[in-house]
Amino acid sequence: MSADLSISRLIKAPPAAVWRAWAEAEHFDKWWIPHPMECRSVRHDVRPGGGFETLMREGNGEWQPHLEGCFLEAVPEQRLVFTTQLAEGWRPIEPWLALTAVMSFTPEDGGTRYSAQVMHKTPEDAAMHAEMGFEQGWGTVIDQLGVLAPTLT
Amino acid sequence: MSADLSISRLIKAPPAAVWRAWAEAEHFDKWWIPHPMECRSVRHDVRPGGGFETLMREGNGEWQPHLEGCFLEAVPEQRLVFTTQLAEGWRPIEPWLALTAVMSFTPEDGGTRYSAQVMHKTPEDAAMHAEMGFEQGWGTVIDQLGVLAPTLT
Repeated sequence: MSADLSISRLIKAPPAAVWRAWAEAEHFDKWWIPHPMECRSVRHDVRPGGGFETLMREGNGEWQPHLEGCFLEAVPEQRLVFTTQLAEGWRPIEPWLALTAVMSFTPEDGGTRYSAQVMHKTPEDAAMHAEMGFEQGWGTVIDQLGVLAPTLT
Repeated sequence: MSADLSISRLIKAPPAAVWRAWAEAEHFDKWWIPHPMECRSVRHDVRPGGGFETLMREGNGEWQPHLEGCFLEAVPEQRLVFTTQLAEGWRPIEPWLALTAVMSFTPEDGGTRYSAQVMHKTPEDAAMHAEMGFEQGWGTVIDQLGVLAPTLT
């Protein structure tokens, strides 16, 4: 039993466009949370040690916390890593779900092989995340990324 | 009330020597744990994402876990950052004490101003770490570093 979950899709846009959809908050907010929920980035500082924080809203409700984390690696158009164990400036925090996500952007067939590997503390945490709907949640938003990225070329 | 603790000493050796005492495991093991306890590094990969793991032993006892973490930043002779929230390769772990430590090495009066800032999740965690003897523990090993570093010039 592994402590990792992963998902991968071929996106019909070059790595530069898929990277922009991740690295620029105005684009990122359009795909990171399953529609029709809305996403708002309050921090999106894509560099090692930079903060990453999103809010979500359903209908006309209040903005709620969604995710807080810290970027660990940012290699433009190639690789992006964040963790929920730390916040901006490497400060340790108590996340509702401890994970580190490694995203890779690889040229393939004129598009981009986008892969996300999500590491957890234990196989039990990974199994819980799977039951919470990892495959559907991350799958839905990658589909949304796949629709947005080709418009950014 | 702050979530940080910090300590600073002037060491009579240049930043290059203080850095070596940190970055090279054979030297590091000689000062990282208060004597007469012994320290053994099982991982000491000083680069972002590299693992950091030490064991300790008292007298002729068994080697026991001491600390596990991951380096976040490593700028030779200037700045070193690690966290206990992650292990090698950025994997999230459950530490017995969640912290991120930022060490800086600054030339001063022909020696090195060595400062460690230790960030916790909450002011309560910092207060607990203070009660556990942060000042004495980190102070003792910085004194040991201060004895070792001048021999590495």
